[in-house]
Amino acid sequence: MAADRNFLILGHRARTAPDWKLDDLCGGGGRLDVLVRCVTAALWVSHGLRRDTDAWLLLSGPPTPPVAVHFCGATVRYLNPDERSTAALVRNGLVKLRNRDSVEASPGVTLHRIGLPEVLARLPPAVLLDEAGDTTEFPEPPLTIVLGDDRDPTEAERGALASAPRVRLGDRSLLSSACITLAHHALDAQ
Amino acid sequence: MAADRNFLILGHRARTAPDWKLDDLCGGGGRLDVLVRCVTAALWVSHGLRRDTDAWLLLSGPPTPPVAVHFCGATVRYLNPDERSTAALVRNGLVKLRNRDSVEASPGVTLHRIGLPEVLARLPPAVLLDEAGDTTEFPEPPLTIVLGDDRDPTEAERGALASAPRVRLGDRSLLSSACITLAHHALDAQ
Repeated sequence: MAADRNFLILGHRARTAPDWKLDDLCGGGGRLDVLVRCVTAALWVSHGLRRDTDAWLLLSGPPTPPVAVHFCGATVRYLNPDERSTAALVRNGLVKLRNRDSVEASPGVTLHRIGLPEVLARLPPAVLLDEAGDTTEFPEPPLTIVLGDDRDPTEAERGALASAPRVRLGDRSLLSSACITLAHHALDAQ
Repeated sequence: MAADRNFLILGHRARTAPDWKLDDLCGGGGRLDVLVRCVTAALWVSHGLRRDTDAWLLLSGPPTPPVAVHFCGATVRYLNPDERSTAALVRNGLVKLRNRDSVEASPGVTLHRIGLPEVLARLPPAVLLDEAGDTTEFPEPPLTIVLGDDRDPTEAERGALASAPRVRLGDRSLLSSACITLAHHALDAQ
């Protein structure tokens, strides 16, 4: 069963094999630093986790895209707020995935060889964060909030999200992790 | 001259000597991961920096506290959004500081052997982020927004901030980096 709040971050060149080092998330990891910051912003509050929230990372980089990494807020363990340890969970998952279709890498962290349409089909209705969005209001949860990493969604991704409302957060273009914090804040105030 | 927006984060056990590894910010660094996430939240927007904002980290851990690390948004270079590279700037600064009173570690990153009262004296009027604060409104900039790391301000710190208004951001207790994002958002909307 899907969570009440879901964040899906589109990682445009995040590596889909564990052939990078934890010291090099930005380079070798294909900007995995952006994605793991998003996991922290999605799941952490002060001294605890948002158990009503899931985070999904869609890895679309070489060599074998796509891979979707699902962090389940209700069941995840061994999650810390720093980038390196969250990246280690992803890396460990890629090691265990190998030639499989899906795997539970660690409690509450699962990897699946599925792309954007398949992920969206498993989740509540999507909204796309978009600086050109025509509303600042989020629909009532359950919902799935979709955003890009440091690059905007591609045309193909926009196609898969054609029916999703576009929501804007403000007038400034912010880091993806900051957008997640602001979305939570808006939903917390609902 | 001080920036228009200043964030000052109180690092309660962050190490004041470079005797820790970049692989171990959370442990050996004394939760330096919390502080460097705050630098990213304070200074980064999408694909650029907030040049009107400064971030100050107050390191109060062993062996030689206090050390204040100043990231100047207007002049900083070599700053990336990931935790490891920002921590490397701090570590490099601690190496260069050694027995000096202050040092420019890299362009726009300076370290000073001064404590909270001395830092506050250099900066615009302070407000303290506080879940029990009696207002949600920030004063007009220039201002200095003060917050703790993963621990609340100590009694001594509260004493130094006795005249600072207490501002609350919402009903949930959030990561320090998330609080900075929300404060920027509130100021951006002013």
